[in-house]
Amino acid sequence: VLDTLCDPGDIVLCTAPTYLVILGTMANLRVRAISVRTDDEGIVPSDLTATLQRLAAANELSRVKAIYLVTYFDNPRGVTLATQRRQQVLDVACKWSRQSKIRVIEDIAYRELRYDGEDVPSLLSLDKEADRVILAGTFSKSFSPGIRVGWGVLPAELIGPVLDQKGNIDFGSPNFNQHAMYQVLASDRYDAHIERLRHAYRAKRDAMLTAADQELAPLDGVHWEIPGGGLYIWVELPEHVDTGPQGQLFNVALEEGVLYVPGEFFFPSEGEPRQTNCLRLSFGVQTPAGIAAGMRGLGRAIQACS
Amino acid sequence: VLDTLCDPGDIVLCTAPTYLVILGTMANLRVRAISVRTDDEGIVPSDLTATLQRLAAANELSRVKAIYLVTYFDNPRGVTLATQRRQQVLDVACKWSRQSKIRVIEDIAYRELRYDGEDVPSLLSLDKEADRVILAGTFSKSFSPGIRVGWGVLPAELIGPVLDQKGNIDFGSPNFNQHAMYQVLASDRYDAHIERLRHAYRAKRDAMLTAADQELAPLDGVHWEIPGGGLYIWVELPEHVDTGPQGQLFNVALEEGVLYVPGEFFFPSEGEPRQTNCLRLSFGVQTPAGIAAGMRGLGRAIQACS
Repeated sequence: VLDTLCDPGDIVLCTAPTYLVILGTMANLRVRAISVRTDDEGIVPSDLTATLQRLAAANELSRVKAIYLVTYFDNPRGVTLATQRRQQVLDVACKWSRQSKIRVIEDIAYRELRYDGEDVPSLLSLDKEADRVILAGTFSKSFSPGIRVGWGVLPAELIGPVLDQKGNIDFGSPNFNQHAMYQVLASDRYDAHIERLRHAYRAKRDAMLTAADQELAPLDGVHWEIPGGGLYIWVELPEHVDTGPQGQLFNVALEEGVLYVPGEFFFPSEGEPRQTNCLRLSFGVQTPAGIAAGMRGLGRAIQACS
Repeated sequence: VLDTLCDPGDIVLCTAPTYLVILGTMANLRVRAISVRTDDEGIVPSDLTATLQRLAAANELSRVKAIYLVTYFDNPRGVTLATQRRQQVLDVACKWSRQSKIRVIEDIAYRELRYDGEDVPSLLSLDKEADRVILAGTFSKSFSPGIRVGWGVLPAELIGPVLDQKGNIDFGSPNFNQHAMYQVLASDRYDAHIERLRHAYRAKRDAMLTAADQELAPLDGVHWEIPGGGLYIWVELPEHVDTGPQGQLFNVALEEGVLYVPGEFFFPSEGEPRQTNCLRLSFGVQTPAGIAAGMRGLGRAIQACS
């Protein structure tokens, strides 16, 4: 989608932090990612406006092609874009569009991995004219990581160009996996499997939160957010602790058997300041016992580096 | 691989005709594909030299980053690069390399689909210093089209960059399919399955060749090559017959229930003249009976348009 929408030098706006792999894709396409202030309800619409204002003043508005958002339990922070902000984001994208539309790419990878509360309407469902939002879905997060089958909903005029571009890149999807997913969906086994995964991941999340209360809460200046879904917990450490791959903590944690993703990886070079004192934990693969052991090791590592 | 080796404006040399999907990939990367004269023993080394000489004279030699070759039963012509030409191609690539090496991308997609004769050594096996040839293999042609698992052999210095680039593009291969292929290979069922496919495809090829003798041989100026493997037969019609998608034959053939790929699609815009009187037939999917019926329809269509 980005390859279709963007030329080198074009701009995509995103949250701070945002999904790190998409930053690699953008760098590869020589697309400028600019992050916008984001709080625990997602991207801040007034800051989105301010960023677009600033770009317009610099005569760069025409380069803004999209806003990329993980709208449910995002990676890395586990934040869901608040319901009342969803229409606002679309309105801002609409208001600042000139000759070329500013599209909103809605990545719903984690939508089905909800552990608390009720589902909320997608940005797509608010796009009454079906010409603004590009929704990207995947079965790799909800159903099975190894399946690599995804799906999208696009404005009609983009379907042909995106399919062409996709063919140039992957020469065709794995048909075998598509048939497997088709059988799963047709046989009504999908929902039951998701429910089982939700149950398992909820227990892992709770194991990590319980361990955080025990191991991290006693430490000075350590904070984390409670995600209502997804696979990640975002931890903020005292400002002087460098979580980067060259920092002390990263290696001490490794010696404790803990691998985290340094928070700075989730920030593009433009926009909000890069946080160097944060880290992303994942509770997807480990058992609850493994999570508890890992959190003890992480607590010791933080203590040693504070 | 092309994305890693090439910047926009760089040049890749190829056979005439060549694999049409790779031409889309090159166009997408804004890479210039230039075709070189090719006969029934593959790309002609003296013409490869002449093309490089011409590019050097135009001060464009530094833009040549690779030679792309399907070295066994190529798509679309079914031609295998002759053994005695293999070392010559490597020598030419070596001789004309300056600061940046001219790599040889060896696509062996159809190597295992051999129906006549003995296997021949790959270009890779002749690359004694393991720094020139990039070999691309796939299980999608030999084992199962829907599996979409491939593999490569690269000069050591390219492995890291190509894997990085791959991650930016596909975010990871389908692990499920890799495990399936691992089980197939580990359980020794691979060779037996390939032998079964070879047997089935050989019968289909022979059905198409028999039908060609019956239906096409009586027609004036219609020629085809007998492929020793692969999935395709390349047919040349009288020069005045336009096989293109806007031409008469394409639609008359469709009415007969026959879909071919117009030959012109397999030629880049630079290099050898585009042949507008050729077509590619595939015997991969149809049954022998379906092939015979299709060839009767194709014969009628050609007769109607000659």
